[in-house]
Amino acid sequence: KKLLLLPGDGIGPEVTAVSRRLLAALALDIEVSEGLFGGASIDAHGVPLADAVKAQALASDAVLMGAVGGPQWAAQDYDKRPEAGLLQLRAAMDVFANLRPARCFAALADASSLKPELVAGLDILFVRELVGGVYFGQPRGIETLPNGERRGFNTQSYTSSEIRRVARVAFELARGRGGRVCSVEKANVMESGLLWREEVSALHAADYPDVALSHMYADNCAMQLAKWPAQFDVILTDNLFGDILSDLAGMLTGSLGMLPSAALGAADAPGLYEPIHGSAPDIAGLGLANPCASVLSLAMALRHSLGEPGAAARVEAAVEAALDAGARTRDLGGTLSTEAMGDAILAGV
Amino acid sequence: KKLLLLPGDGIGPEVTAVSRRLLAALALDIEVSEGLFGGASIDAHGVPLADAVKAQALASDAVLMGAVGGPQWAAQDYDKRPEAGLLQLRAAMDVFANLRPARCFAALADASSLKPELVAGLDILFVRELVGGVYFGQPRGIETLPNGERRGFNTQSYTSSEIRRVARVAFELARGRGGRVCSVEKANVMESGLLWREEVSALHAADYPDVALSHMYADNCAMQLAKWPAQFDVILTDNLFGDILSDLAGMLTGSLGMLPSAALGAADAPGLYEPIHGSAPDIAGLGLANPCASVLSLAMALRHSLGEPGAAARVEAAVEAALDAGARTRDLGGTLSTEAMGDAILAGV
Ligand SMILES: CC(C)[C@H](C(=O)O)[C@@H](O)C(=O)O
Ligand SMILES: CC(C)[C@H](C(=O)O)[C@@H](O)C(=O)O
Repeated sequence: KKLLLLPGDGIGPEVTAVSRRLLAALALDIEVSEGLFGGASIDAHGVPLADAVKAQALASDAVLMGAVGGPQWAAQDYDKRPEAGLLQLRAAMDVFANLRPARCFAALADASSLKPELVAGLDILFVRELVGGVYFGQPRGIETLPNGERRGFNTQSYTSSEIRRVARVAFELARGRGGRVCSVEKANVMESGLLWREEVSALHAADYPDVALSHMYADNCAMQLAKWPAQFDVILTDNLFGDILSDLAGMLTGSLGMLPSAALGAADAPGLYEPIHGSAPDIAGLGLANPCASVLSLAMALRHSLGEPGAAARVEAAVEAALDAGARTRDLGGTLSTEAMGDAILAGV
Repeated sequence: KKLLLLPGDGIGPEVTAVSRRLLAALALDIEVSEGLFGGASIDAHGVPLADAVKAQALASDAVLMGAVGGPQWAAQDYDKRPEAGLLQLRAAMDVFANLRPARCFAALADASSLKPELVAGLDILFVRELVGGVYFGQPRGIETLPNGERRGFNTQSYTSSEIRRVARVAFELARGRGGRVCSVEKANVMESGLLWREEVSALHAADYPDVALSHMYADNCAMQLAKWPAQFDVILTDNLFGDILSDLAGMLTGSLGMLPSAALGAADAPGLYEPIHGSAPDIAGLGLANPCASVLSLAMALRHSLGEPGAAARVEAAVEAALDAGARTRDLGGTLSTEAMGDAILAGV
C-alpha cells in the first residue's frame, strides 16, 4: 500500500512529522513518500498543486495532508493560491464524502466552552459533501458592470446524483452507529436546498427505511449544536454548510487540535486525510502545534484506505492513553511541545 | 407615526398581542394597524403577502412582524410559501441592514449552554445584509438535465454598492459602541467573498480609519463564537452567513426567546422589526411562548423608526426589571404564560 504525505504550510510540516515517526514505529508494510503542496509548492514551482504531485496522489492508496495557506501567498491570483490547490486536489481525487467526527475525549471534557454535562461523551459524525456546491459551481467570478460597479458571484449547484452518492455514505455510516441521520440545508430559501431535501428523502425511502432521517435548516442546526449537541448522531450536509457547522461542532468538543477528517471517493479510489485545523501561521515553526489531529487522520487513513484497522485502533488508543496520562499541548492548556506530545503518543503504541 | 403589526403564524399572534398591549399602555401618539401575513394570508388570499399589505407596509414608519411559516403550508409552490412572503416584504421595503443584537441579560447568564464566565456581559451586534446574496440571486431554480437528472441551483451575488451600503451601517454603529468591526465571508473559496472583503476594506480606508476592522472566514467565525464570543463587537456579514451565525450567537446568550431584530433601509424609509425566533408550530396557541423578543423588537422600532427613544428605553428597562424579579417563561426555565410574562413587563413601564 502507498501513502503520500503532503505536509504543506504553516504547522503542517511539524504535525505531519509526528505522524511519519508514528508510521515508522508501527513498522507496517506501507510505502511512504512525500510531496510539495500549497504555498510550499508555489514557492518551488509557481503552482499550489503540480501535475506530478496530483498524479502521485491518484496513484496512492491514501494521501495525508498537513495544512495549506498563509499570509505570504494571499496576493496570488485567485486560482493559484494554496487553498485553490486544495480544492483542485479534492476535485481531482473526487473525494465527495468528507467524514468529520466531532468527538469529545473523556480527558478533555473540561476544555470545552460548553458546560461539561453538555459535551461529555459527545460523538457527532459530519458527512460533508466535498467536491460540489458553491465551492465549485459555474459561473463564478468578479465582473465589471456597465455602470462601472463590480459584481462578485458564485453558483451553488447540486445534481440528484451528487446528492445521492454522499447521502448514501451518511446512511451507511449511520447503520454502524446510532442509526440516525439529520440532513441540513436551507430548503426554505434555496431551491438547491429543496432538491437536496427531496433527493435525500427519496433515497431514504427507497434504500434506508431502517435509518431515522430528520431534516433541519442550517441556521437552526447551528443553534441546536450550541444548545444541545448530544441530540445529533450523523449530520449530512453540503460543502459550505458542512465547512461552517463541522468547525463549530469541533470547537464545541473543546479541542480543535484533536480533530481528524477523511475524504472518501469511489470504493477503490484513494482517500484524502487532513486535520480539521488550518496552517496556523502565528505559531508555525515554534513547535507548539498539537499533532493529535494529524495522528488521528493517519488512523483514519489506516482504517479506511490502507487496510490496517488494527493499527488504526492502536494509534487511537495511544492518543487516548497519552491524554489520560495528562499529556497536553498548549491548545489543551498544557506545555508539551509538538515533539514531546508525539513522544507521549509513541510511548503508547 | 404609523406602525403596522403583522402577527403572522404560529406563536406570532400570541407574542405580538403582548407588544400591542404594551403599546396601548405607553399611550404614545402612534397609529397602530394590523394586517395578514405569511400562512395566515395564504389561507385568506392565496398569497403570503397581498399587494394591499405591501402598500400599507411601505406607507408606515415601522412594521412589527411576529413570525411566519408552519408545516401546513410546506406544500405550497416555492414562491407562494410563507417564507417567500417574508423575502418579498424585505425586498419591497429594501431593508438591507439587519441589526441583530446578541446580548446576554445579567439575570439569564446561567441559561446559556456556555460556561457562565464566557457569556457574562456578552454584547455582539450583527449587521447582516438582508436583501441580496444567495437568497435573491438569479438565476435560480430546479431544472431537468438532458440525462434525466435534476439540478438545483442558486446564485450568490453582490455588487460593490450593495456591499458598501451595509458596511457603512456597520461602521457607523461601531462608532457608537466598541469601535470594532469584524467582516465575515469565505474569500478563500468564493469570489463574491473576495469582492466583499475588498469593498469593505476600501470603504474603511476611505471613511472609517478610526474603526478597527478585521476579517474572518465564516467557518472560523463559527468556531470563535463558540470558543470566546466576547472577542466580538460588531460582526458584518452577508445574508446567508448572517442567518447562521446570528442564530448561533443568539443561542449562546442562552435565550433565543429574548432576541429582537431591526431591518433598516434608507434613512427615511420604514423599518421592519421581528423577533429572531420562528413560528414554533409545536407550541403555537398554547400560551407558552416568550413575548420578550417581540417586545424588544418593538423597542427597537420605537428607537429607530418611531422617534420615541425614551419609550424604547422604558420598554427595555421593564423587560430587564421583569427578568431581575424572576419572571420566566418556559424557554427560560420558568412557568409563566405568554400573557403573565406580558403582565410582568407591563408592571414595569
Ligand atoms: C482551507 C479551506 C479551503 C477549507 C474549506 O473551506 O473547505 C477549510 O476551511 C476546510 O474546512 O477544510
Ligand atoms: C424564515 C427564514 C426565511 C429567515 C431567513 O433565513 O432569513 C429566518 O431564518 C431569519 O433569519 O429571519
